[in-house]
Order: sequence, then structure tokens, then C-alpha cells
Amino acid sequence: MEDTRITLAHGNGGRFMRELIDEIFARHLSNPELDVHADAVPLALQGQELMFTTDGFTVQPLEFPGGDIGSLAVHGTTNDLAVAGALPRYLSLNAFIEEGLEIAQLDRIIASLAASARAIGVQVVAGDTKVVRRGEGGGLYLATSGIGIRTGHRLGLAQIRDGDALLVSGPVGDHGIAVMLAREAFGLHGELHSDAASVLPLTQSALGLSGLRFMRDPTRGGLATVCHELHRTTGLGVALQQAHIPIREPVQSVCDILGYDPLYLACEGRVLAVIDPSQADDLLHRWRSLPEGVAAAHIGQVTAARQWVLLHTELGGERVLEELEDDPLPRIC
Amino acid sequence: MEDTRITLAHGNGGRFMRELIDEIFARHLSNPELDVHADAVPLALQGQELMFTTDGFTVQPLEFPGGDIGSLAVHGTTNDLAVAGALPRYLSLNAFIEEGLEIAQLDRIIASLAASARAIGVQVVAGDTKVVRRGEGGGLYLATSGIGIRTGHRLGLAQIRDGDALLVSGPVGDHGIAVMLAREAFGLHGELHSDAASVLPLTQSALGLSGLRFMRDPTRGGLATVCHELHRTTGLGVALQQAHIPIREPVQSVCDILGYDPLYLACEGRVLAVIDPSQADDLLHRWRSLPEGVAAAHIGQVTAARQWVLLHTELGGERVLEELEDDPLPRIC
Repeated sequence: MEDTRITLAHGNGGRFMRELIDEIFARHLSNPELDVHADAVPLALQGQELMFTTDGFTVQPLEFPGGDIGSLAVHGTTNDLAVAGALPRYLSLNAFIEEGLEIAQLDRIIASLAASARAIGVQVVAGDTKVVRRGEGGGLYLATSGIGIRTGHRLGLAQIRDGDALLVSGPVGDHGIAVMLAREAFGLHGELHSDAASVLPLTQSALGLSGLRFMRDPTRGGLATVCHELHRTTGLGVALQQAHIPIREPVQSVCDILGYDPLYLACEGRVLAVIDPSQADDLLHRWRSLPEGVAAAHIGQVTAARQWVLLHTELGGERVLEELEDDPLPRIC
Repeated sequence: MEDTRITLAHGNGGRFMRELIDEIFARHLSNPELDVHADAVPLALQGQELMFTTDGFTVQPLEFPGGDIGSLAVHGTTNDLAVAGALPRYLSLNAFIEEGLEIAQLDRIIASLAASARAIGVQVVAGDTKVVRRGEGGGLYLATSGIGIRTGHRLGLAQIRDGDALLVSGPVGDHGIAVMLAREAFGLHGELHSDAASVLPLTQSALGLSGLRFMRDPTRGGLATVCHELHRTTGLGVALQQAHIPIREPVQSVCDILGYDPLYLACEGRVLAVIDPSQADDLLHRWRSLPEGVAAAHIGQVTAARQWVLLHTELGGERVLEELEDDPLPRIC
């Protein structure tokens, strides 16, 4: 039954590779601008202001509740464009496939990737596959680069000011815990689903607000790591209110059992926004009116008065959130 | 001595990862448009006609005579833009790093990548790194996407006509054999260097000719595989003259010993061009006046009279070049 699994000959440039590309990649990703015979494709983007980003994906397992490495690659990369204030338009796709991967699983994953891209109106226009030897890959690694068109005003850490409000669009840590439970490494099973999704509706609705300074999707390292980057780059402190940070009960339970802090867990469909405090309520209202933002919350503020990332606890104390050093969860994005 | 090797904590989004990115990637790749803190970067490309491409790299060993996976990634991706008639401008870079890789080796490779990019005037403006567990990667895999500006007229397989001339810019197979000898898998040692290099001077000089139909860098699967794609896509036959195809003597010797056909071996710095026969001599003259093209040759023609990829042998016979099925050489790009 060798035909049901990837072999090294699928990567050699010859017939097997051509058939693999035609039957899986080209079939699912078919669009007018994808030309699998071209070295490079023209982009219909003349006169637009462009944004560019890239991301790699090594999640284990390849399929998990709420997503898979294919949809994750689309969401991860287009979300980076979205939080930078851009509308995603084009993607490139690199697949590093391990010898022995089931072709049926590859087919499911690329179909999922294609469906996710279609749903947000982006086209995969360039691609490449490499097959690596058994034991030299994790089944499948993906890398995607994205090109988008800037909409709205320029955002960035440099725009952030003392007193700005911090909002998050929904509960944190679902993705990290869902992937960890899918690994079954601890014998725990839950009904948690990854939050992996496009944040484009959230970012596009926020861009209408002139006081919006910065957005970020808190992936690797979670909410605490984004706050650290903000602190390190701006020199300003961050004060978070623990009572206001939305965390699902099962996520908190698993964290309590295993000793994880949900503030360091990856999300793949949330946005952290920094905004002029006078417009915080307006953003909260906009987000809560969207299905992706019903649990949005105003979770803290930027403050020149403190020199740390601080968590004001529900019991009235305060705790310094340290920069992440050890690996909290393996291979969640 | 754990500090001299990559650990899983280098991939977790925290301090170790930030230091790795600052000390290796940002240091070597520093340029005004690279912002390691941004999710996506703006591109100064307004009003230009853009081309987009992507490529993955898994070469083993990571360093070989004449190049390494870093310079190969730059040349491979920018060459795809060059043969499509574009001037490369921007690159994104994804690195999949295996736990245990020597940091000194990673540093050499990224320095080499940066030097190659600078030499051809392209900027690496977006990047991402992932660390995979020991035994789940080949030390280092890279994926690069490139954006360029179209110069010259539209090229493509669809432009090719009966009677067109085929030219190659230099000897074929050097890269494939150099990498194979570097693996030492056969106990053979040679003085061969990879041909890995930018083909931009070759493609830019060819673009001045109105009769230029198509260019391709014959990488995976080599010259024969490009001819097969031409045949399959256009329905026209290809007749190659063995006596005119430049092959270095040591490449031919190694092929003779091991039973390889150099026409299927990867090049990483050659161009195959298809051109109106009335301009073939002009192109040959242009290429031979460049250091990259001193050994350029007119090697065959496109012909509607035959339905195969044919090799007219030096002994006066003819041989059909079949499409590649088995893997000729592992992991050469």
C-alpha cells in the first residue's frame, strides 16, 4: 500500500511530484492566478500600498479540535496582516512533507487550507513542496508568506502612549490547551476547541477608530509575551486586571492541574488592541457586536508610573509577569 | 556546553528566542525596512508591476563546496523571479531549526544568506523561526518568498513556437554532483563546486531581445525535466544535440561511475532560454560576454515534427529522454 503514503520520489521534480501537485495542491487551491508551471506569478496590485508577512507552522498533532495545520497557516499569516491594518490578498505556500505521511491526511489538510483561504478572500498564488526523509520531519511543516493592502492609518508600538487602554477580543489560551489535550500527553481529555480563526472582522471594525494605536494577535508566548514586547519597546509599564481577562473555565482548570499560566498560552484567533482610553468603550462595543468578539474585554492599561508588566490579582494583590524562559507547551503553532 | 546549540526554548516566543533573533537574524539581515517587532511590513512598491514566488530548501549537507543552504535560498528564490523577467526586491525568510543545531553553524549560514541578498540588492523584510525537536528536522530547513518588479516583456511556455532555439548559459549538473560528493556517501571526493549563483545578469541581458519566449533555471530534475515540462505544456517536441550540451569532465566522470545522467541533475545558477531562432546567435553572444555565461551554448530546438524529448547522440543516434520517476539524488535543493 505504498501508494497511500508519501515517498521520496514525490519530491524529485519528476512524474510523482507533478501528480502530487496536480492532484492535491493544484486541485484544492485552483484559482485564476495560480500557475503551477510559472516560476513567479504577476500580482494585480498596482497602485496599492502593500504589506508583507511570513510565518512557519510545526503544530503537533497536524489535526486538532477546531483546526489543523492547514487552516492554522492561513489564519496565522493573514492575521498578521490583519493586525497590521491590512486586507490580506495573496499567499505563498511551502510544504515540507515527511516521507511516510498519509496522502489522505495531506489531502484533508490542503483542502482545509484552501477552504480557509477562500473564506477570507485570499488566493494562494505561489507554492513549493519538498519531501524530507522519514525521521527528518514532523509529518508536515508549512510556511506561508502573505501580501495585503493597507487600509486605515499606520499602527505600531511607536504610537502607544501613557494611559492607553488594553482590550482583548475574547478568551485567552484556548488554542494552547486544545492542542495540548489533542497530544494526549497527560491523559487529560477535554471538549475544548482551538480559537484558531480569522481576526479580520475584528481588525477591520477596529480600524475605523482614530485612537487605535496597535494590534497584535497573541500567538506564541501568549498575552503576557505581547505585553512584554510592548514594555520593552516603549519603556512604558503595563497593568493588567486579572478579574477582567476572559479565560474559559476548562482552560483555567487544565492550567491549574498542570501548573500552566494561561496568560502565556497561544491564541490563534484573538486580538490584543491598544487604544486611546476615550475610545475604549467604542471599541468594546464594536467588538461585542461581532460573533468573534462577544467576550471582548477591557483588561488593563499602559502606564508610565510602573516599570513592569503587572497583574493586579483578583485578591487585590499584584504580581510581576516575568518574560517567558522555559517552553510552556511544545509546538502549538 | 548547551549554550552552543539550539534548544527548544529558542522557539517558545520568550527571551531565548528574542535573543536568537536579535543576535543572529536581525544582526546579519539588518536593513531599514526589516522590523522584527512588526507583524507585517510595508513595501515601497507603489505603481510597479509585481511578481511573486516561493521556494523551500532542505539540502544536505547544509554547507557544501560553492555554497550553503542560506545562499542557496537567496539564489533559488531570486532566480525564479529573474527567469520570469523580474528584478528581485524583497524576500521573506522562514527557518525551521532542529534542536541541537550548532549556533555557530546557524550564524555562518544566515551571514551567508545576508551577504548573498546584499550582493543582488534584495532585502529580507519579514521572517519567522520555528524550533523542532531533535530527530524531527534535518538540522535546518528554509523557506523564502520573493517579490520582484517586472522588467521587459511577458515570458512563458505559452509564447514558445515551432522552430525556436534552446540555449543553456553554462555547464549542467555541477550543483547536483558537488552536493552529492559533499555527502561522501560513495567515498568519492572531487574538486567540483556547486554552480549556485544569481542568474540575474544572464536574465537581464536576455530580456533585451524581443524574440525571447521563456527562461527557466533547471533545478530539481535538471535540464531534461524542464524540456519535459515544455513538451507537456506546449505539445511540441524538443530535440537536443548531445555534442553541444556543456558538461564538465569531472561531472561526466562521476555520472559514468555511478550511473547518473547529468541531464537530470540540478543546477542552481544556470538558465535555459527559448528564443526565436533568428536571435539565438545574439543571445549566445550576450551571454558569452558575461562571466556567468562564458560556456553558454545553443543546445537544441523546439520542433513540431517530433512528439518527444529527444537527444541526438554524439554517435549519430537518437534517444528519448524519459520523464524522471526515481530519485536521482537526495536533497540537492
